[in-house]
Amino acid sequence: MIVLPADRFRELGVAIFSALGAPRDRAEFVVETLVEASLTGHDSHGISYFVRYADRIRKGFIDVGAEPVVAKESASSALVDGRWAFGQVTAMRVMELAVEKAKTQAVSAVGAYNCNHIGRVGYYTAWAARQNVVAMMFVNVGHPAVAVYGGLGRVFGTNPFSAAVPTGEADPFLLDYATSVVAEGKVSVAKAKGERIPLHWIRDKHGKATDDPRAMKDGGWLLPFGGHKGYCLQMLMEMMGAVMTGSRSGLDPETEPPSTNGVFAVAIDPDWFVGLEAFKQRAEMVLRGVKATPPEPGCRVLIPGEPEWETREKRLREGIPLPEETWDQMVKLAEELGIDPRYYETG
Amino acid sequence: MIVLPADRFRELGVAIFSALGAPRDRAEFVVETLVEASLTGHDSHGISYFVRYADRIRKGFIDVGAEPVVAKESASSALVDGRWAFGQVTAMRVMELAVEKAKTQAVSAVGAYNCNHIGRVGYYTAWAARQNVVAMMFVNVGHPAVAVYGGLGRVFGTNPFSAAVPTGEADPFLLDYATSVVAEGKVSVAKAKGERIPLHWIRDKHGKATDDPRAMKDGGWLLPFGGHKGYCLQMLMEMMGAVMTGSRSGLDPETEPPSTNGVFAVAIDPDWFVGLEAFKQRAEMVLRGVKATPPEPGCRVLIPGEPEWETREKRLREGIPLPEETWDQMVKLAEELGIDPRYYETG
Repeated sequence: MIVLPADRFRELGVAIFSALGAPRDRAEFVVETLVEASLTGHDSHGISYFVRYADRIRKGFIDVGAEPVVAKESASSALVDGRWAFGQVTAMRVMELAVEKAKTQAVSAVGAYNCNHIGRVGYYTAWAARQNVVAMMFVNVGHPAVAVYGGLGRVFGTNPFSAAVPTGEADPFLLDYATSVVAEGKVSVAKAKGERIPLHWIRDKHGKATDDPRAMKDGGWLLPFGGHKGYCLQMLMEMMGAVMTGSRSGLDPETEPPSTNGVFAVAIDPDWFVGLEAFKQRAEMVLRGVKATPPEPGCRVLIPGEPEWETREKRLREGIPLPEETWDQMVKLAEELGIDPRYYETG
Repeated sequence: MIVLPADRFRELGVAIFSALGAPRDRAEFVVETLVEASLTGHDSHGISYFVRYADRIRKGFIDVGAEPVVAKESASSALVDGRWAFGQVTAMRVMELAVEKAKTQAVSAVGAYNCNHIGRVGYYTAWAARQNVVAMMFVNVGHPAVAVYGGLGRVFGTNPFSAAVPTGEADPFLLDYATSVVAEGKVSVAKAKGERIPLHWIRDKHGKATDDPRAMKDGGWLLPFGGHKGYCLQMLMEMMGAVMTGSRSGLDPETEPPSTNGVFAVAIDPDWFVGLEAFKQRAEMVLRGVKATPPEPGCRVLIPGEPEWETREKRLREGIPLPEETWDQMVKLAEELGIDPRYYETG
């Protein structure tokens, strides 16, 4: 494991995407979302994507210069054609439109299609909450990895859901998770470390429970979280992310690009409803009440988002850890792209 | 267990609420929602409420003649003061407004406060889906019964969530559940039958796992479903149901009326987005793909809502079963109210 300050990764990431032809402001934004994912502890959606996105750019799946366009628009709604730009650029456009419209219409809904991988969904909802709007993002992944409840084999993607709520606290309430028991990246991390995983995470290719993370790549699949209740939520993401926007479903033939997201955002302005100050005061009352709850022995009671904001502070102070193998891949890529060594030499 | 046709219960229910002063059309509507809950297998939200609502009417908690009023309104949004009418009347008003506004604005959001128990949430979302709109309802219960993840003691209500989606099929996709592992009613049912319950449903008053359903009434509490992921959803219901609308939170002092709901609905018109026919075709493709999935040994793959629609057909054919104790309570109530015996004699 190497540990480097966030800024070092930021500079390297911008150098990589710039060398691959991305306009500087766009490279900076995409890198910012990936660094934020790593800072908040979502390593599976973080800076390791420098290398994966570089590969997708070279293969023509991500068009670094493309500009998402608003294909349809009303006072409260929009449908965005992402035109295979960086998914992050499309998702941010979706959320900016949603916030802007919610502030004049009380509620808004904005969807997107032709959208690449958008990274950590909580980036966009948390941003909206900091603009004093409640935001939800329903996302499907056009790459099946998860079974349905009671079924065998891969049907849907990890279909994440995120919701963020402004509160009286500095950081928003943030729900942000895959509707599978865990994100696929957690299985990969266990595999890389040679560790066993809990029996309720995945099934092997025969549908048998297993604690061997290698079974995932060998034809296995993830399970939805929370039994039939999580499965219902997983399928709601498919309805909103894929069906409502016209994006690729996990049930469509898997064509290229290999990893797509269908994105649907809803934003609500609390100021129109109960009033912003009243909303924040009451939200804070709820958060404080939860924090005052006595914990089960050996547990902490955490507010949704709290682990993220805690990890962020720690990693801003101590740096972001990265497996050496991943770092070596980044260095190799940087060398191929002729990037100034000061961006990737650790000494 | 007695078994009677739905119509018999319908007539008895209307007679009860009419005798308690409810206008006939209102009594019919409330009874309709309760009979539908029983028909679809949600016994914990069904006709057993005839007796419980009668008690609340007599205590002045439900105002059978009150008319909910729209306290604030825009083209896409509304906030409804339920004025302590039957919760069902308020929730239906919320959903009617949401559907009407979504059809002209593509998306809408409607909240309600001063709202009594609304019964089975899926009644309203499924109704909206039959009007070709995607609907979600975020509900909090102002009566704590569920712990937070990692915490001891009752903090929030069973905070249900429901979402319904129109499809090419006759019946909508329907997600409709408490964010606790099970609804409180399921624990009561096990208790009445003298059965044990799974260890992950509740904790006793000391925070210990138990399979004894009696521990619930003796100071115990339910757990949120799906670990921290279900807990996040539970708390989102509190933010939308209670905080956004100004309704009572599980963390407020528990005053009267004893059982309140904070209600927040979002409706989205698929016709504005991908187009209604395209939406239904794609939704049907997703449903059929799921149904074609090979099942795990001993399992069936079910679509969200399918158990409900199956049970409904069966009970329409065979009648609704009711524990004799509950039936006896209804008969006693009917006698007290001087109701014509033909409504409650089974012979």
